[in-house]
Amino acid sequence: MIRLAFPMLLIALCCGGAPARADTLVDNIQGITIDADGDIETFTGLVIDDDGQIKDVLDRRDKRPREIDFQVDGEGRFVIPGIIDSHLHVMGIGLAALTLDLSDTASLEEAQAKIAEYAAANPERRWIVGRGWNQEKWGLGRFPTAAELDAVVADRPVWLERVDGHAGWANSAAMRLGNVDEATPDPSGGRIVRAAGTRQPSGVFIDAASELIASHLPALRPEDRDLAFQKAQEILLRNGITAVADMGTTIEDWQSYRRAGDAGWLKIRIMAYAAGTGAMELIGGPGPTPWLYDDKLRLNGVKLYLDGALGSRGAWLKQSYADDPGNTGLPLLTGSQLRNLMSRAALDKFQVAVHAIGDAANAEVLGAIEELAPTYPGDRRWRIEHGQVVDPADISRFARHGVIASMQPVHQTSDRQMAEQRLGPARLEGAYAWRSIAEAGAPLVFGSDAPVESPDPFAGLAAAFTRRDAQGQPFGGWRPAEAVSRERALAAFTSSGAHAGFAEGRFGRLVEGERADFVIIDRDPLLSTPEDLRGTKVIETWVGGQRFVQRDMPSGND
Amino acid sequence: MIRLAFPMLLIALCCGGAPARADTLVDNIQGITIDADGDIETFTGLVIDDDGQIKDVLDRRDKRPREIDFQVDGEGRFVIPGIIDSHLHVMGIGLAALTLDLSDTASLEEAQAKIAEYAAANPERRWIVGRGWNQEKWGLGRFPTAAELDAVVADRPVWLERVDGHAGWANSAAMRLGNVDEATPDPSGGRIVRAAGTRQPSGVFIDAASELIASHLPALRPEDRDLAFQKAQEILLRNGITAVADMGTTIEDWQSYRRAGDAGWLKIRIMAYAAGTGAMELIGGPGPTPWLYDDKLRLNGVKLYLDGALGSRGAWLKQSYADDPGNTGLPLLTGSQLRNLMSRAALDKFQVAVHAIGDAANAEVLGAIEELAPTYPGDRRWRIEHGQVVDPADISRFARHGVIASMQPVHQTSDRQMAEQRLGPARLEGAYAWRSIAEAGAPLVFGSDAPVESPDPFAGLAAAFTRRDAQGQPFGGWRPAEAVSRERALAAFTSSGAHAGFAEGRFGRLVEGERADFVIIDRDPLLSTPEDLRGTKVIETWVGGQRFVQRDMPSGND
Repeated sequence: MIRLAFPMLLIALCCGGAPARADTLVDNIQGITIDADGDIETFTGLVIDDDGQIKDVLDRRDKRPREIDFQVDGEGRFVIPGIIDSHLHVMGIGLAALTLDLSDTASLEEAQAKIAEYAAANPERRWIVGRGWNQEKWGLGRFPTAAELDAVVADRPVWLERVDGHAGWANSAAMRLGNVDEATPDPSGGRIVRAAGTRQPSGVFIDAASELIASHLPALRPEDRDLAFQKAQEILLRNGITAVADMGTTIEDWQSYRRAGDAGWLKIRIMAYAAGTGAMELIGGPGPTPWLYDDKLRLNGVKLYLDGALGSRGAWLKQSYADDPGNTGLPLLTGSQLRNLMSRAALDKFQVAVHAIGDAANAEVLGAIEELAPTYPGDRRWRIEHGQVVDPADISRFARHGVIASMQPVHQTSDRQMAEQRLGPARLEGAYAWRSIAEAGAPLVFGSDAPVESPDPFAGLAAAFTRRDAQGQPFGGWRPAEAVSRERALAAFTSSGAHAGFAEGRFGRLVEGERADFVIIDRDPLLSTPEDLRGTKVIETWVGGQRFVQRDMPSGND
Repeated sequence: MIRLAFPMLLIALCCGGAPARADTLVDNIQGITIDADGDIETFTGLVIDDDGQIKDVLDRRDKRPREIDFQVDGEGRFVIPGIIDSHLHVMGIGLAALTLDLSDTASLEEAQAKIAEYAAANPERRWIVGRGWNQEKWGLGRFPTAAELDAVVADRPVWLERVDGHAGWANSAAMRLGNVDEATPDPSGGRIVRAAGTRQPSGVFIDAASELIASHLPALRPEDRDLAFQKAQEILLRNGITAVADMGTTIEDWQSYRRAGDAGWLKIRIMAYAAGTGAMELIGGPGPTPWLYDDKLRLNGVKLYLDGALGSRGAWLKQSYADDPGNTGLPLLTGSQLRNLMSRAALDKFQVAVHAIGDAANAEVLGAIEELAPTYPGDRRWRIEHGQVVDPADISRFARHGVIASMQPVHQTSDRQMAEQRLGPARLEGAYAWRSIAEAGAPLVFGSDAPVESPDPFAGLAAAFTRRDAQGQPFGGWRPAEAVSRERALAAFTSSGAHAGFAEGRFGRLVEGERADFVIIDRDPLLSTPEDLRGTKVIETWVGGQRFVQRDMPSGND
């Protein structure tokens, strides 16, 4: 980067006041972006300079610049800012794409068939590794067992992560490698599911208990990581996502991102949140990194976990689970551990993002922020990730310190029935309460939590303003009062996401001076029906004025 | 770095064939460099372009270019290529400069006084940490003891590394923290020195045993590392060193170097050799990194340790020490461990540099290279670091596979008397045998091993062609047949050092197209007497066409 001084000098010396060349004009489009007040603004043309920054935003009446080197005819198509997904796991997306994916299985039998087929197709793999199962979706009413895995793969260890990443399913070969048996105690912060009435591990391991098996998985090679990252970038760009908050970046992940940046194949923008304070210090050192590779990569701060997930009953609730009396889930950190970790990060100006799903967990993080805020003043942008179940009495506390609520619309549509069982009717008041939290004045940002859910942002947008799933269920929407407007949903997936990652002014809006990150789509995001919007086709995805995705459709005279 | 494409484009677009601006002319100098055949070549002027590359090398008769933006009058001073130190420890240099330095103490009493003074001056430090002691230089004839440290500092733990880094000296407070007592066994690869006739640890811990204490040192903060790195750069540039081989780079070191590169304060060129294969994989991933920051940083490969040092009798000898019958020192790795680590690195094209000091260690590494070379063909540039004591029968084996002998001239002058005691007359034949190894046809490169020795390259050059120390001792030089010519010494400190780090063509020689790394000095490196050469003053140090050091002397009309 230190070389940049010279070329800048050159521009001054060589080009004087002459109009800069190599400008690109994207014209004849129906463009929308979010303005400073969070309202929709429209335009019909974009001028992009050599550095991939927006030089001018044109209205129908505006004169088009004369000196243009490259012109794209949008043919009247719709243009929106590049989508910013404020909560996903970049490497997880890539690795999921490279391993067995059970997220589309509708029953245990279907999953077993898919596992058997995959094992047969990959005889060379020492382990069968995969993810995405969901016993709720299977209507199983219980966790699957090791025996049910042994029935299809007995010759090799099998390890399959639950869709939410908070539980894992092992076969007997894997449990043998982990030396797990009736004598094995539950580790702190985790639980070994046991066969009814016995101490015999049944094959599913929750939260910290997963390590008993996962620690025996063959280590990933750097080549595997780079391949996974490449795959993740493809998937994200194809979905119109140009920037992400990577929740739980390890030093190995970071090194892959840097290799991509150094070699010139870093395409998406990554706002990284380190996997714990150790990784945070190793990656960032004395503080957040600078923006690297033309605003493509920055370590913003740290991701901490206070509890687990609802599906596996790992979320920490104030009252016990409606469908499991006496079990309130568990905090993964004590109150002082949480405060110490948050202080350690805040001390060096790292941004703090805490995973909190249960109402007890959300209250605990809010309390910690209230205690720490006076000690660490200034623009901190504390984040709560998920904020899924919040005691209505706590909702106003988000706004008080400008705590960012980082939420995932599609979780609501997937979890709906499970959440009703886990929480019972009384607690649904503050569940997935997007609108109440936003109305209370807290910054609201949206993401997908991919690979837990599909990264498709149009499904997220549709869910956000309808509270209905892909099948349009339930009629009228689930607790529809918590739906948000299309404008607010779009802001939560673009400009607000940039602000939540200290990137405002760099990207997130299609205005002069910001990076030219945008998506050309085939239908109107403001007027299409929800069902129609879910079918949106991404025709082109541009990041920093470079086109990375181009669907095989006519798209201009270039 | 991916942004560079644009500016390049600009040059083409804006400037057409016009002469590039912002050229620098360094004129009226007596310049020397090494040519392709390793001979001296002279010149009187250098033209440097915007990118800091040498555009033209001028002779007295050559026309000077008309369009020059910046001119430096060398006033007839001498210019040599920037010195490349092929073996040192960058962070070690910086940290040594920030902690207690005992390398200048001539007696135990003097050291004790300095330690007491330092402890009194730094009451806030929880530990007193330092390095540089040498019981040989003190004429102690034995290792110092914990009691001798307790006598000056008893209130806090004290940990002092020996000058060669292969032993540490602790006081009783430090040994208590390490839970070390007569019951503690020697760890593998290390030795606890014990009071005569007892099992009571006397206070000195050799090689792997050092960890018993060192593992309790307070962890360095990233700020400390960055400060140390800044300090190290200053010291190196002040000595005329513009590029180094960093032997034993940790991920924390690497992150400091990258922070400097990202923030624009990386000044020296670092060819990094990772501290073991774990750090190698974490830093480099699937292979060596690209050259980063305009050839300022690259991970070349891995540094492995096969044995310790002569001073602490950790060097691995074929026959036992002349002054310690029955003790042959010890290998830190078994033969198969060494081969496995070398294979792991070579498999992914990482360069392998192995520390070998004793004749047994050198023979073992040469044997491993001979076995592995057919499996890993191509341009590998295997390196042996130090190669201090080589069985004359093994010398020709260096050349056979082009094994680079990375040696440190000043070690010979410092170790001379100690080496005679350790080895006895018979084994001196192959000790510090620079000339024999080079004449046998092996690439010879020089370094300082700083902070073990001063990084001053002029002391190294003088020692290289005289085999005499700063006091001119011994008269006529120690085993003077092993002295090398001034030309070969200069090559070993410049062009050969670049080749040993895969940097030939990038830097190391003052020829068209290479980086403008050079040093302006106040006397003639080819004609000055050795005593005079040791007094050389570095007036200016330039890296990549940028001047980083400028002595307070008249130096041109700029």
